[in-house]
Amino acid sequence: MKISRAAASLAGRSSRAIGPRNCRAFGSKSQSDLLHSLSDMSDDEVVDMVEQGSVPIYKLEQELKTSVESGADPDCTRATRIRRKWLRRRLAEQSPNPDADIEELPYAEFDQDKFYQQVLGNNCELVIGFVPLPVGVVGPLPLNGEEYHVPMATTEGALVASTHRGCRAIKASGGAQATIFRDGMTRAPVLKMDSGSNAVALKLWLDEPENYAAVKEAFESTSNYARLLDLTTSIAGRNVFTRFKCATGDAMGMNMISKAVLAAMEVLKEEFPEISVLSLSGNVCTDKKPSAINWLEGRGKSVLAEVVLPGEVIEKVLKCNVESLVELTVSKNLVGSAVAGSIGGNNAHASNIVTAVFLATGQDPAQVVESSNCMTLMEAVNGGKDLHVSVTMPAVEVGTIGGGTSLHAQHACLEMLGVNGSNNEEPGANARQLAQVVAGAVLAGEISLMSALAANHLVSAHMALGRKTRKE
Amino acid sequence: MKISRAAASLAGRSSRAIGPRNCRAFGSKSQSDLLHSLSDMSDDEVVDMVEQGSVPIYKLEQELKTSVESGADPDCTRATRIRRKWLRRRLAEQSPNPDADIEELPYAEFDQDKFYQQVLGNNCELVIGFVPLPVGVVGPLPLNGEEYHVPMATTEGALVASTHRGCRAIKASGGAQATIFRDGMTRAPVLKMDSGSNAVALKLWLDEPENYAAVKEAFESTSNYARLLDLTTSIAGRNVFTRFKCATGDAMGMNMISKAVLAAMEVLKEEFPEISVLSLSGNVCTDKKPSAINWLEGRGKSVLAEVVLPGEVIEKVLKCNVESLVELTVSKNLVGSAVAGSIGGNNAHASNIVTAVFLATGQDPAQVVESSNCMTLMEAVNGGKDLHVSVTMPAVEVGTIGGGTSLHAQHACLEMLGVNGSNNEEPGANARQLAQVVAGAVLAGEISLMSALAANHLVSAHMALGRKTRKE
Amino acid sequence: MKISRAAASLAGRSSRAIGPRNCRAFGSKSQSDLLHSLSDMSDDEVVDMVEQGSVPIYKLEQELKTSVESGADPDCTRATRIRRKWLRRRLAEQSPNPDADIEELPYAEFDQDKFYQQVLGNNCELVIGFVPLPVGVVGPLPLNGEEYHVPMATTEGALVASTHRGCRAIKASGGAQATIFRDGMTRAPVLKMDSGSNAVALKLWLDEPENYAAVKEAFESTSNYARLLDLTTSIAGRNVFTRFKCATGDAMGMNMISKAVLAAMEVLKEEFPEISVLSLSGNVCTDKKPSAINWLEGRGKSVLAEVVLPGEVIEKVLKCNVESLVELTVSKNLVGSAVAGSIGGNNAHASNIVTAVFLATGQDPAQVVESSNCMTLMEAVNGGKDLHVSVTMPAVEVGTIGGGTSLHAQHACLEMLGVNGSNNEEPGANARQLAQVVAGAVLAGEISLMSALAANHLVSAHMALGRKTRKE
Amino acid sequence: MKISRAAASLAGRSSRAIGPRNCRAFGSKSQSDLLHSLSDMSDDEVVDMVEQGSVPIYKLEQELKTSVESGADPDCTRATRIRRKWLRRRLAEQSPNPDADIEELPYAEFDQDKFYQQVLGNNCELVIGFVPLPVGVVGPLPLNGEEYHVPMATTEGALVASTHRGCRAIKASGGAQATIFRDGMTRAPVLKMDSGSNAVALKLWLDEPENYAAVKEAFESTSNYARLLDLTTSIAGRNVFTRFKCATGDAMGMNMISKAVLAAMEVLKEEFPEISVLSLSGNVCTDKKPSAINWLEGRGKSVLAEVVLPGEVIEKVLKCNVESLVELTVSKNLVGSAVAGSIGGNNAHASNIVTAVFLATGQDPAQVVESSNCMTLMEAVNGGKDLHVSVTMPAVEVGTIGGGTSLHAQHACLEMLGVNGSNNEEPGANARQLAQVVAGAVLAGEISLMSALAANHLVSAHMALGRKTRKE
Repeated sequence: MKISRAAASLAGRSSRAIGPRNCRAFGSKSQSDLLHSLSDMSDDEVVDMVEQGSVPIYKLEQELKTSVESGADPDCTRATRIRRKWLRRRLAEQSPNPDADIEELPYAEFDQDKFYQQVLGNNCELVIGFVPLPVGVVGPLPLNGEEYHVPMATTEGALVASTHRGCRAIKASGGAQATIFRDGMTRAPVLKMDSGSNAVALKLWLDEPENYAAVKEAFESTSNYARLLDLTTSIAGRNVFTRFKCATGDAMGMNMISKAVLAAMEVLKEEFPEISVLSLSGNVCTDKKPSAINWLEGRGKSVLAEVVLPGEVIEKVLKCNVESLVELTVSKNLVGSAVAGSIGGNNAHASNIVTAVFLATGQDPAQVVESSNCMTLMEAVNGGKDLHVSVTMPAVEVGTIGGGTSLHAQHACLEMLGVNGSNNEEPGANARQLAQVVAGAVLAGEISLMSALAANHLVSAHMALGRKTRKE
Repeated sequence: MKISRAAASLAGRSSRAIGPRNCRAFGSKSQSDLLHSLSDMSDDEVVDMVEQGSVPIYKLEQELKTSVESGADPDCTRATRIRRKWLRRRLAEQSPNPDADIEELPYAEFDQDKFYQQVLGNNCELVIGFVPLPVGVVGPLPLNGEEYHVPMATTEGALVASTHRGCRAIKASGGAQATIFRDGMTRAPVLKMDSGSNAVALKLWLDEPENYAAVKEAFESTSNYARLLDLTTSIAGRNVFTRFKCATGDAMGMNMISKAVLAAMEVLKEEFPEISVLSLSGNVCTDKKPSAINWLEGRGKSVLAEVVLPGEVIEKVLKCNVESLVELTVSKNLVGSAVAGSIGGNNAHASNIVTAVFLATGQDPAQVVESSNCMTLMEAVNGGKDLHVSVTMPAVEVGTIGGGTSLHAQHACLEMLGVNGSNNEEPGANARQLAQVVAGAVLAGEISLMSALAANHLVSAHMALGRKTRKE
Repeated sequence: MKISRAAASLAGRSSRAIGPRNCRAFGSKSQSDLLHSLSDMSDDEVVDMVEQGSVPIYKLEQELKTSVESGADPDCTRATRIRRKWLRRRLAEQSPNPDADIEELPYAEFDQDKFYQQVLGNNCELVIGFVPLPVGVVGPLPLNGEEYHVPMATTEGALVASTHRGCRAIKASGGAQATIFRDGMTRAPVLKMDSGSNAVALKLWLDEPENYAAVKEAFESTSNYARLLDLTTSIAGRNVFTRFKCATGDAMGMNMISKAVLAAMEVLKEEFPEISVLSLSGNVCTDKKPSAINWLEGRGKSVLAEVVLPGEVIEKVLKCNVESLVELTVSKNLVGSAVAGSIGGNNAHASNIVTAVFLATGQDPAQVVESSNCMTLMEAVNGGKDLHVSVTMPAVEVGTIGGGTSLHAQHACLEMLGVNGSNNEEPGANARQLAQVVAGAVLAGEISLMSALAANHLVSAHMALGRKTRKE
Repeated sequence: MKISRAAASLAGRSSRAIGPRNCRAFGSKSQSDLLHSLSDMSDDEVVDMVEQGSVPIYKLEQELKTSVESGADPDCTRATRIRRKWLRRRLAEQSPNPDADIEELPYAEFDQDKFYQQVLGNNCELVIGFVPLPVGVVGPLPLNGEEYHVPMATTEGALVASTHRGCRAIKASGGAQATIFRDGMTRAPVLKMDSGSNAVALKLWLDEPENYAAVKEAFESTSNYARLLDLTTSIAGRNVFTRFKCATGDAMGMNMISKAVLAAMEVLKEEFPEISVLSLSGNVCTDKKPSAINWLEGRGKSVLAEVVLPGEVIEKVLKCNVESLVELTVSKNLVGSAVAGSIGGNNAHASNIVTAVFLATGQDPAQVVESSNCMTLMEAVNGGKDLHVSVTMPAVEVGTIGGGTSLHAQHACLEMLGVNGSNNEEPGANARQLAQVVAGAVLAGEISLMSALAANHLVSAHMALGRKTRKE
C-alpha cells in the first residue's frame, strides 16, 4: 500500500528514540547555532557529526540550509554529497564489500533546483544519487484517431524495438481503438466487530441508501475530486472489509482516497461505536498484490484496446499468419495460463510494456503487479482472412499529477503524450487518456511478441519439413 | 517473456518491407557514401532523410558513425540528439500535443562512453534520453552477520524513510536471518501433439531416467552455467507444457534457459517427430504474470527472511505492540488477502521494496509481478513478549550479471551490496546473496508499514476511548 | 450448469437419427397397436424389441403403459424391470465383466406410486434401480433460538458422530447464531459482439438506469418469483458476460433464472442486433465449478454462523484448549490454504457436512463445489478464556421446492427441519432457513474436526514430553 | 479431511463428559442386566431411557443386541426404529416444526443383514433410515476398446438422458480413449518449527536421498499397499507442509496414507525434536477444498479422455457444427472461466457427471470439489471437418474398496463396470479403470451439454436471421 506520511513521520520520531540526536555534543548551542556550525564545517566534519549521532543521516537536507538566513532552503545537493561520503565510510567499515566504489552512481549531473529540491519531501529520502534509465520512443501509435509517440524507460534490450514493430503493424492496419469501460480507485479498510452478527448488521446498514448517502457526504468532504462511486462490503467472521471506489480526477488517487476513507470511518464509528478500524488497508483494496478482486471488479481504469490486422499486414510486417496466431493465443494465453493457475495473466508480456511506460511517465511501478493484468485475445475474422486482436486490462492505475509525474523528465514524457498535469476542462480526462495509451502500447507489444513466437514456430516447422524432405 | 533477439531482428527486417528505406534518393551512392553523406549533413538534414524514409529512425545509431573510418563506433550521442529533433517535428505535426516540450527530458548529461554506447544493443532502442530515478539508501540492515546499506530507486515519497525505520528495528533486535530454500529459473514451452494419448506418451517418456538424461545433456551443452535441475510436464488435451528448471549461475537466467530449452526440444523432436513447438514460452513458466505455479513451486530464488523483535523494540521504535501486530497480520495479510482471492499476496507492500531495490540494482522490474509474491507472518513468541516476523518469498528473480546490471549506476549499487558481477569462486553465490538482501529489505519494509498501520489503529482507538470518556 | 430440457429433448430427437426406431418391424401396426403388443409380450420379448432397435431403451416408460386405455400412466416399475433384463444381456455380451451381477442393486422395494412415477420426467432417466444412502441425524443444534435435528446422508464413517459432537459443544455453549447477509441466484450468458468497442457500448448501455429497468421488466415477466436484484457486466475483448442476480423464492432457482435471462436477452438483441448469444451460461455464473467470483460476490445464500465456546466446554467436550485451536486455525485454515493456492477453501472439511445435508434434503450435490466455499475462523476472546468460532459461506445454493426436494425421503428430511415446500407467507424464507441450518451444521462439523486434530496434537505433544522425560 | 476414528471415539468419550449416561438410574444393575432390561422393554420404554439420559442415542445399536446371548449382534433394525420414535418426540417438543412427519423417510425396506449391519461402524452413525437415489444407466460408452454401461445416481432431471446422448455420439465416432497420466493420493501435515531457518533445515534434510529413504521405509511399514512416490515440502515462515504422495492400491487411500504419514512423522521427530505436528492435515493436501495445488500437481488419478467426432456425427447426433463448438469452447470454457477467476473449472458441467457416478459407485461425494476439476477442450482437426474433444482431469479420487463401495447397491454398480473390489493381479488397476470410466462419462456429458448450448445458439441465430429477412 501507499506509505502514509504517518509512517515517515513516525520514522523520524522513533529514530530519536533509539539513536537520538545528541544535541549535548554542541553544549548549549541552539538550533540556529547548529545551522551555523554545519555551514562552517567541512563535509568530513559533518560526517563525523553523523557518526557521533548528533545529526541523523536522514535529516541532512533539513539540517543543511542553503544559507544561514531564516527560511533558507534545505541544501539538498550538499546533503547528498555528504551522505555519499558517510556511506563510503560505512561501507569501508562494516559492509561485506569494504572496497565498494559508489562513484559510478551519478548525482552531480543535476542540481538543487532541477532535481533534489523537487525530490525532497515528495519522492525519496536519504538520497545518494540517481539511476538514469534509458528512454526509447515507439510509434506513431495510431489510437482513437490520434497518433502517439510513446516513451518507454527500460533496460531490457529489444523491448522497445519489438513494441515499435507492433506500432507499425497497427499503423499499417489503419489504427487501433481504446475505450475505458470502468473507472475508480479503491481502498478497503479492515474493521473488526464484536460479533459476526454485528458485522452483518454493519453491511446491511451500509446497504441502506440513506446511510450510504451519509457516508458519501463525509467521504467527499475531504477533496474536490474524490467522488464516491460504489461501496461493497465483504465479511469474514467478525472482519468487515468495506471497499470504497471513487473517482479521483487526474490523480492515481491513493492518497486522496485514503483521506476520504478516514472521514467515512468516522460516520461508521458514530453508528457502530464498537468498530475497531484495524487498518486503513485490509488487502481487499487490493494494492500492489495479485488478487481476483481487481481482476473481477477493476481498480483504477479498466481499458480495452483492439485492432483488426489484415492478413496481408500479418504476413508482411509480422512474418506469420492468422491461423498460427489464433492457435498460439489459445494454447498459450488461455490454456497455458489456466494450467499455470493464473488469475489475470492471460497474456504474453503485458507487464513489460506497462512497466516501461509507467517508469517513463512517473507512475508507481510497484503497481505494475495489478496494472499488468491483461487478457490478450486473437480471433480470426472476415472468414479467416484477418485477425481481431484485443487486450482487456481491468486495473490500469495511472495519474498525471502527483507521485513521480512532477519530476522534470517524467513530466516531459507526459507532455509527449499530451496528458501532463490536471485536465481543467474535464478532470480525469488526462489520466484516462494515459490509461488508453498504456493499453494501446500493450496491444502493440503483444502483437509483436506473439508474432515473433509464432514466426519462430513457422520457421522451425518449415525447417523440420525441409529435414524430412531431405531424408527421403 | 523475455523479448528474443529474433523479435528485434524481425523488427528490422520487416520494417524494410512496409516502410522501405529508399536508397534511390541517393542515386547510385553506396553505403559508405551514405555514411559520408550523413557525416557531412546537419542534424536537420538527417531528420529530413528520416522523414523521407531514407534512414530508418531506429537505425540512426548504426548509420551515424563517430568517424568515416571503417570499424568506427556508432555515434549514439548524435543519434539521440537527432532523434529528439525528429520527435519534436513529429509531435508538432501529428500528436495530440503539438506544443509538447520534451526538452525537460534529459539526455546530454551523459556522453557516448558513459551511457549510450553501453545501452546500444543491450538495454534500449530508439533512445531519446533518460529518466533519472532518485536513489535513497537504507540501513544498516544486519543480515546473516553482515551489515548492508541497501539502495532503493523510487519516486514514492516516504518509502525509503519507512524501510529505513524497519532496518533500525531489526538492528535494535540483533539482526535478521535470511535463507535460500530453493533455486532455479524456469521456462516451459508449449508443445502440441496430434492426440492426448501421445501427449501422455511424451510425458511418460520424459519421466524415464535415461530419457531425462538425454534431454539434460542437450540442455546443458549450451552453456557453462545452465544445469538442469528438474523437468515437470503438464498436460491439457493435446497441449504439453514442459517446465524446465535450471541453475543459471549469477545471471537471472532467462536468456540462458531459453537457449538451453531450444536444444532440449531437438531431442524431443527426434523421438516424437509430430511435436509442434508452438512457442518457447507457454505461460506455465510463468514469466511476468501472476500464477499459482510460481507461488507453489518457485521461480528464481525462494527466500525466507526472519527476525525476532523484542517487545521493547516494538514499543520504542515501532510505537505499537505485539498483540496489535499479530491481530493485524491475521486480519489483513491472511483473512483480507483470502477474501480478495489473492494467490501470493499475503503481505502489506512487498512489491514496493522489491521494485525499488530491483530498479537500483538493474533487475528487470517487469518481473516484480512474481518476485513480490510474499507471505508476511507475525506471531507472538516467548510467552507473548516478543514477535517473530518472517517473509517467505518463493520467486525472487535476480541476477548480478546481464540485463541492466552492467550499466554504471546500477553496477555501483550492486557494489554497495558486494554482489556485483559473477562470483568466480562459487557461481550463483552473488545472485543468491542479492535475493537474500531483497528479502531482508522486504522484511524491514513490512515491519515498518505494518507497525505504522497498527500504531494508527492504537492512536485512533485511544482517541476514541478519550471521546467516549469525555462524553460521559 | 443445469441441463436444459432442450438437451433432453434433443437427446430423444437425435436418437432417432442414428439409432432409429424402426417401426416397420411391426409391419403396418399403429402406435396403439404397439402398446397392445408390448402389453401382451413377456419381458424378454420386449427386451428383444429393444435389441432390434424397435423400442428405444430410454423410452421404455412411455411405451409401457399401465393399461391399454388411452391416458394410462407409463408403467415405470415394469420399465425398470425390463431395462435391468436388457442391461444384464448387454453386460453379458459386451462389457468388461460379462458375469456382472446387478441383482444387488435394489429396485423392487419401491413401487410405481411411491417412487418411479415421481422420478420419471423429473429426476432421472433410464432408471435401473436406486442406491439407498444411509441417513443419520445430529443434534439438537441450537440455532437462532430454535433446536434443529439435522439429517445427513453419507457413507463416510464417523462424519455424523463427529458433527453430533460439535452440536453438543454448541448446545453446551448456549447455542449458535446464523445470518444471511446476501441472497441471489446468478446466471451469466456469454454474448459475442462484433467489436470490443461495441462490447463496451453494451456494458455502458446496461449501466443506464432506464435500460436496466427495461431489462428487468422483461426478466421478471417470466415468473412470479424471479426478481432481478443486480446485473454486472464483464468484458473480455468481444465477449460480454452479463451476470444476472435474482431472488428466486424458495427454489434454488437455476431453471427460473435461465428462463428469465432468455427473456432479457430479447431486449438486448432488440437494441444490439449484432449480439450473438453464444450460450446461456458463459461460466461467469459460476455453476458447479470453482471460481473467485462466487467467493467474492456470492451465489445463492451468503451465510455466516458463529458461536462463542467457553473455555470449559472446549476442555470438557472437545478435549483441547483455546490456544491450540487458534494456532491450528492460523496454520491450517489460513496459512495452509494460502500456501495451497486455495480460493474459498479456508476451512477443515465444510464439504463433508454440506454434501451430507444436501443429499438428505434433495439439493443438487454437484453444487457442493461452490456451496462448500467456507472460511472457518477461531479467535480467542474474553481475554483468551473463550473462543469465537465462525464459518462464513458466501455461496450456499439451496431450495426447498423443485429438484430432488419433492421425492418422499428428501421431503421428509426437509420436514424435520420445518422448511419443506414453499413458504407462502414469506417466499424464500424456507430456503434461507435451510441455508442457515447448513451453515450451523458446518459450524458444528468444523468445531469437532478442528478439535480432534488439535487434541491429537496435544496428546502427541504430551506423549513426546513423556518420552523426553523418560529418556532423562 | 477424512474424519479420523479418533474424532468418533472422542465423540463417544466426551459425550460421557457432558451428557453422561447415568447408570445409577438402574440401581446396581450390571451391563448385562441392562441388556436384559432393554430387550424386555417396549420401544417406547427405551425411548424413555434415552430421554432420561440413561442410554445415549448414538449408542442404541450397541445397547440393543439381537439376543441376550453374549456375542450377539447389535440390533440395528430395532435401533433405527427406536431412534425414529425418539426423533418424533424430540421434533414434537422442541423443533421449529412440531408436526413434522418423518414417516416418508424409508427405513424398513431393508433389514439388518442387507443394510444396517453393514452400515454400522463403517458408513453412518445415528441412523434413522435412508434416502433412495434413483440410478440411471448410460451407454454403451466405448472406451479403450471396451463398452461400458455407466450407472449414475442423481435427482437432476435430464442429466442421464443428456450423458446418454453423449455416449451415442462417441459410439458413432468409433469410441474414445482414456489414459491415466499420474497417480497418487496425497496428505500434507502442518509442522511448526521454532524458526524459519529450521523450517528450511527440515526441508533440506528431507531433500537428501538417504533421509528420504528412511522416511519412506517408515511410511511403507504401515501397509502392504502404501508406496511413497514423492514428498514435496512447502514453507511459510515457521510452518512446514510436507506433502506425501503415495500409491494406495485400489483404495481411494485417505485412511491408508494418514496412517503412513503418522509413522513418517516419527522419523522426522527423531531428527528434529522441536517439531510440533500441529495437524495431520495442513490443507496443502488438499482434501475437499478448491486449490491450485491439486490442479497443478494432481491428487488421486490424473486422467485424460478424448475422442475425435466426425463432422457428420456432430451434425446428425448433436445438431450443431464444428465451428460453433470451437467458438463456444474458447468463449465459455477458456475466456469465461478465466474472467470468473476459476482455477480448475474450464469445463461445462463435469461436476454433474462426476457426482452422479461417484454416488452410484460408493465414492466420497465430498471429494467432488477437486475430482471435478476439468479442462474441456474442443479443436477443429482434419482441416476443420472434424472435432477433437478432450477432458483433462488432474484429481479424480476414486477407489473400488473401502468407504461406500462395500454397500450392496454401490457394489453392484461397480460390478457393472467390472471394477468391484481389489484387483489381485495388479493392485490399483480397478481404481484406475474406474477413474478412466469417470473421465469417459464426463467426456460424454461435456459433448452433449456443449452441443445443446451451441445448438440453441444456432437455432436462435437462425430465427434471428429469419426475423431480419422478414423485416426486409
